[in-house]
Amino acid sequence: MDKELTSSIEKVRSAVKEELTHYLAEQRDYLTSIASELIPVCDALEDYLLEGGKRLRPLFAYAGFMAAGATPTRTDIRAMASLELLQACALIHDDLMDGSDTRRGKPAIHRHFESLHRQGSMSGVPEQFGAAAAVLLGDLALVWSDHMLHNAGLSHESLMAALRIHDEMRIELMAGQYLDVREAGEKEFSVERSLRIARYKSGKYTIERPLHLGAVIASPAQSEHGQLLNVLSAYGLPLGEAFQLRDDLLGIFGDPTVTGKPAGDDLREGKRTVLMAMTLEKASAPARRELQRDLGNPTLTVQRIEELRTIITETGAVAEVEKLIEGLATESKIAAQSSAIAADAQPFLLALADSAIRRSH
Amino acid sequence: MDKELTSSIEKVRSAVKEELTHYLAEQRDYLTSIASELIPVCDALEDYLLEGGKRLRPLFAYAGFMAAGATPTRTDIRAMASLELLQACALIHDDLMDGSDTRRGKPAIHRHFESLHRQGSMSGVPEQFGAAAAVLLGDLALVWSDHMLHNAGLSHESLMAALRIHDEMRIELMAGQYLDVREAGEKEFSVERSLRIARYKSGKYTIERPLHLGAVIASPAQSEHGQLLNVLSAYGLPLGEAFQLRDDLLGIFGDPTVTGKPAGDDLREGKRTVLMAMTLEKASAPARRELQRDLGNPTLTVQRIEELRTIITETGAVAEVEKLIEGLATESKIAAQSSAIAADAQPFLLALADSAIRRSH
Repeated sequence: MDKELTSSIEKVRSAVKEELTHYLAEQRDYLTSIASELIPVCDALEDYLLEGGKRLRPLFAYAGFMAAGATPTRTDIRAMASLELLQACALIHDDLMDGSDTRRGKPAIHRHFESLHRQGSMSGVPEQFGAAAAVLLGDLALVWSDHMLHNAGLSHESLMAALRIHDEMRIELMAGQYLDVREAGEKEFSVERSLRIARYKSGKYTIERPLHLGAVIASPAQSEHGQLLNVLSAYGLPLGEAFQLRDDLLGIFGDPTVTGKPAGDDLREGKRTVLMAMTLEKASAPARRELQRDLGNPTLTVQRIEELRTIITETGAVAEVEKLIEGLATESKIAAQSSAIAADAQPFLLALADSAIRRSH
Repeated sequence: MDKELTSSIEKVRSAVKEELTHYLAEQRDYLTSIASELIPVCDALEDYLLEGGKRLRPLFAYAGFMAAGATPTRTDIRAMASLELLQACALIHDDLMDGSDTRRGKPAIHRHFESLHRQGSMSGVPEQFGAAAAVLLGDLALVWSDHMLHNAGLSHESLMAALRIHDEMRIELMAGQYLDVREAGEKEFSVERSLRIARYKSGKYTIERPLHLGAVIASPAQSEHGQLLNVLSAYGLPLGEAFQLRDDLLGIFGDPTVTGKPAGDDLREGKRTVLMAMTLEKASAPARRELQRDLGNPTLTVQRIEELRTIITETGAVAEVEKLIEGLATESKIAAQSSAIAADAQPFLLALADSAIRRSH
């Protein structure tokens, strides 16, 4: 990627982090004025939000703002940075629901509070305390995301337009999350259903809606069905699906030192991904039986994971998913070059597309 | 209570239910257009929100609006009704965190989805699915509460003033919930800490902030530290504590056919209430040992609960809590008669105070 673009992406990331740092410091002052027992809550959320994260949603919001032909001010970046708090809620609750132990190489929030319970020799059951803390820290992050957006300092018009998109985005997120959780209860894998989940969880929530959010903050008078938002959807939805497909590949083939998740995590969890649905469709009967026996077994060894990877690759599903990613990326990049998008924004959108699909974590 | 007042309270309750019915029907249309798998989500939340509930928070918001000398329109009631969705989030997540099986005499949301999982012979662990569904339905209710408030149709000034109060209220709620969960991990009961939790969970969240919300929707230009909001705090905070103390009594002595919760639920759960903290402070050494042995034992028999009730009453703690409730109620009612509160609103506030503390569920 172009050095200049890499540096502008890094600058947005730093600005987002700076706004979050400032917001969280204010909230720490307030919460600890209520009770010192809230210090671990502040510590955990600061650690979660300031140490890592790709800042994808604020970056796409930034790109959407640029697509409308304007450059975000600090105020606008503050509003967009609030998306990181919403994402913190989604991840904290997700890890709890999946029973995942780690996130970005550190203990998941429920595990962290479980440890605090044990270290403090507190009364009751550590796991129950950890789960309750994860529910509440997620809720608090969700409420904070709203509070940060409301108080960013946007004009009335921009805020109203932002809230409309933001509300739709959050409803879509929760619907997508429920469908994802429910999918794990289905007897059979389904490419079609998994693609629909990818569309809601990644296409809309991660990419399309952040783009729209940035665009309407920049230009609140535009119609929700106007040309700019439509073109941003044409860029964002296929890119979001491609992003999720890359995630599927990383969930099975990713390097744990880079992803911060255990090797073959999706196999141990039996995650209903598009990749696995395609694999099962294409597999020979004996290969399918082998996979079905082992998927969702949390005690799979590293060696067994390696064997399952080979089976999956040999079905041709990996190559097909890679081809699908390429096709979606091309579709997305063509939309990025539409004349409805400000010329300055186009290289930025293309660079973000590359970083979303050519990533190792 | 005066018949006319009872009837106006009932009218507000009906209007709140009507707004919720309308909102939920719209959301059902939208969610089921995404996927038919979302029907059980809509069913469960409609059942939860339309079948029962005291509508306390919208009623206090209504009273706050009247206190500012105005009468709420349908639009205003719509905005206030959104508080029921926030409360649904709090209760759904609360029951999950506490492991409570029932709410209002029906299965708690996590138990309900556990049953759906079993009935549908779905793959995976029913308890994990139930817990995940409760996390997500709570999140969805929280997001809906915001969405309903944003779209109620308030003027810009009223909405902005409402959002300020609403955000503070939600942050206080989550802080109070965390302190409550954390309290269960303390080795010792504490009257002081339990009173602080009552202040955040009930004083502020249930009563003071809804009053403020109504008052600023009616009169958005007033200062946050102005006379009306201060007087509403002077009425609401003691009343909230009294409300929580009544809850403490009902949690141990309440009639399960009226409360919809099992008899002696707080004893089985070992809940850290002000009542129990006072009981342990006052109890003789042998009585204290007996209580400490049995508190938090989920298998307590009805007979044993009856014996524990006798021990608790004999310490004098019940009488002291009743006295405390009376004192707080008097303090609250004096504030309700302040000249800063519109004359029309005063009987309404007094009636609400009575219904909050002289209740059997």
